[in-house]
Amino acid sequence: MMSADTFILYELAAADHDVRFSPHCWKTRLALAHKGLEAKRVPWRFTQKDAIAFSGQGRVPVLVHGGTVVSDSWRIAIYLEEIFADRPTLFGAPEAKPLTRFINSWADAALLPALARIIVLDVHDCLDAEDRAYFRRSREARFGMPLERVVEDQVARIAEFRTAVLPLRQYLDHQTFLAGSTPGYADYCVFGMLMWAHCVSKAQLLEPDDPVRGWQERLFDAFDCLARRSPIAKQASLQ
Amino acid sequence: MMSADTFILYELAAADHDVRFSPHCWKTRLALAHKGLEAKRVPWRFTQKDAIAFSGQGRVPVLVHGGTVVSDSWRIAIYLEEIFADRPTLFGAPEAKPLTRFINSWADAALLPALARIIVLDVHDCLDAEDRAYFRRSREARFGMPLERVVEDQVARIAEFRTAVLPLRQYLDHQTFLAGSTPGYADYCVFGMLMWAHCVSKAQLLEPDDPVRGWQERLFDAFDCLARRSPIAKQASLQ
Repeated sequence: MMSADTFILYELAAADHDVRFSPHCWKTRLALAHKGLEAKRVPWRFTQKDAIAFSGQGRVPVLVHGGTVVSDSWRIAIYLEEIFADRPTLFGAPEAKPLTRFINSWADAALLPALARIIVLDVHDCLDAEDRAYFRRSREARFGMPLERVVEDQVARIAEFRTAVLPLRQYLDHQTFLAGSTPGYADYCVFGMLMWAHCVSKAQLLEPDDPVRGWQERLFDAFDCLARRSPIAKQASLQ
Repeated sequence: MMSADTFILYELAAADHDVRFSPHCWKTRLALAHKGLEAKRVPWRFTQKDAIAFSGQGRVPVLVHGGTVVSDSWRIAIYLEEIFADRPTLFGAPEAKPLTRFINSWADAALLPALARIIVLDVHDCLDAEDRAYFRRSREARFGMPLERVVEDQVARIAEFRTAVLPLRQYLDHQTFLAGSTPGYADYCVFGMLMWAHCVSKAQLLEPDDPVRGWQERLFDAFDCLARRSPIAKQASLQ
């Protein structure tokens, strides 16, 4: 392990700032763990744009490594792979990088919107007061309706999510992880989406016997149960 | 090029047996081209189960290579990669194989059903009489409704397909092909789906300025315009 002072990672935080639920921050967190690196994890809120203005943009994750600032989870993964080439590889081989990028794009374009329609109100509810106002305003503009209406029909929205995840379900008939026999960055891109929901919501996204759940459990276990041990919002454990 | 007699490829054929529209057969056809191999291409119809009974199953593609019989497009790709390891690689690296398999799963689980709801009647219409009866019976049982009703609302179905293809569209902001700077088996898995529609239907699946169309054009051009030069059903060119 390198010193914890070497890296600073800005992560989206709930009102309870130990709850770090951003899917993109989870991608980075697991990429760091994969490389055997530890970061000083700084909680950040949607409305604290000033706190990361030094990165030249307004979103997390932002990784500071010595004098280098990298934002965007994909660019952080590329950076870590290059700078720490002697540590366990995130992609397996350079030829696997574009394919992993597609899987990241699938997670962002197919899974994230399907999950948002289930958990967007849970996300809102876990935020602190200032972030709640910002989040409701920006997301209601995006959806064109109140958050309460977005998540109104949970049964239908969960059915849609289960359909969206079908490519992964079918794939898991043949393989243990997206990256092969051991997990890689492709897995973290997709698992990050499920961690987002896990941290804020008690929705039962997957049937108990869904093979996707088996894969999720294997990733919960990775890196000494890093994901399993992570704090979740109180509302998420109410069930 | 090896002798054309070395390989026999059974491909699904329309009433006009030069029209070979199966997405899975297209995957194999492009995999063979990628390896610089030519096959004797045998037209096959849904109802000719006896003709491929020697393969121990009832679907095409079936590839016969000397004394070896391989069915299932994925297994054929793995076979070609192993046996012709000295020819251009389909996967780029062994580490890219599971990721490519996921992309194949995405094509089959997300794109194929979305396209079927647009073109299933076109597929029916291009078949010969005997296959039409079989196809209508089996597909109407699957959809639980007449084929005419499946494709009733083309505008809505095409909008759904354009959403389904979003992960690829976003990915293409960054890359030329799924496999990277040159096409690979991951590209053929997805392009095979579009060839299926191209061969039988005149539906305008993509907006003229969709980046997916640019990628499709690059694959139309591959291997001396192999896909572009392929015969299509008369109904597909009626527009």
